[in-house]
Amino acid sequence: MYRLHDNLASGNAYKVRLILSQLGIPFERIAYDTDRGETRTVEFLKKNPNGKIPVLELTPSRFLAESNAILCYLAEDTHFLPADRLQRAQTMQWLFFEQYSHEPNIATVRYWITHKVEMTEYRRVALPIKREDGVAALNVMEQHLADREWFVGTAYSIADMALYAYTHVAHEGGFDLSPFPAIQNWLNRVAAEPNHVQITDDKIGRVR
Amino acid sequence: MYRLHDNLASGNAYKVRLILSQLGIPFERIAYDTDRGETRTVEFLKKNPNGKIPVLELTPSRFLAESNAILCYLAEDTHFLPADRLQRAQTMQWLFFEQYSHEPNIATVRYWITHKVEMTEYRRVALPIKREDGVAALNVMEQHLADREWFVGTAYSIADMALYAYTHVAHEGGFDLSPFPAIQNWLNRVAAEPNHVQITDDKIGRVR
Repeated sequence: MYRLHDNLASGNAYKVRLILSQLGIPFERIAYDTDRGETRTVEFLKKNPNGKIPVLELTPSRFLAESNAILCYLAEDTHFLPADRLQRAQTMQWLFFEQYSHEPNIATVRYWITHKVEMTEYRRVALPIKREDGVAALNVMEQHLADREWFVGTAYSIADMALYAYTHVAHEGGFDLSPFPAIQNWLNRVAAEPNHVQITDDKIGRVR
Repeated sequence: MYRLHDNLASGNAYKVRLILSQLGIPFERIAYDTDRGETRTVEFLKKNPNGKIPVLELTPSRFLAESNAILCYLAEDTHFLPADRLQRAQTMQWLFFEQYSHEPNIATVRYWITHKVEMTEYRRVALPIKREDGVAALNVMEQHLADREWFVGTAYSIADMALYAYTHVAHEGGFDLSPFPAIQNWLNRVAAEPNHVQITDDKIGRVR
């Protein structure tokens, strides 16, 4: 059985809980407290030398890190990854957009605020820039969704899962979604997909 | 013929020039001066609403953005992307590592220094943090390469191309590679691959 090295508040880890649930794949969850450095221990760094959750343990000696790489792995040969070559490439485009232009801004600001981290000089100066860059990412999404139901093609895919993870909790970081009606409608469509689970749902997976 | 919306100094654009050259695929290049806002014009934003190069124009109406998504697209069914499912997932893992943990630190610092950008308060405060995070990314790479020739499996792949792009010019951003002998040996192996081209090589592709 897959074992997910997890953190319930993390949108990146939620992506993996979401696709496993929607594919009906059973898994075990092991929770880490990132605030207490539990992903920086010698033992954890053997699983992911980059010291980040999520990590999907495929077998007791094989570990896969990076949430969007895990999505690609699990989605192969399923309806969550388009079969068409161009659409697959567009899916990858949105996954990299998410990790480069969306997550470092929207997720990081949410983390700083909800975890009540110390406002160092760097965070104080970076906060308004990350807010601005986060809104720019939302604008790119809004424009794309203006005449589309889903990010790629005509079906829900891992591109939607990846972007949903931190967009639907963006308000927790102070991002106002009211100027983004197309995003709001798309969030509702994602949440209505079969076997959707919530980021706070700690009942899924078997806790070890 | 593919048309690459390009910038010669960009490591992200270089990844695309490199794989096209190594696959023997002819292409046209159109250069943009990012310092002068040429990727923020109305015309360019129709190609990539996120306002970044590289963009690969597949046909006159189809554009693919995000350097690592372009690598995935071009590498499909070639020896630059492993056929094995686990190795393909590991390739994706390194591509996302590159865009999240490596590029925003090593490439951004290089850009600030080589383009002599104005040292705003944000950049002054962020610079030492990006240097530290860049060195952390190099440490992850060094550890991985300690007993391996290539990032995934036993062959040169798009994982190596993506990580080579900004690692081999990291010194231009003030990163000292002398504490990283495994990285240095790997850089030499990448540069010795057939049909390798240099980041400064403006003779490849047909300039339009």
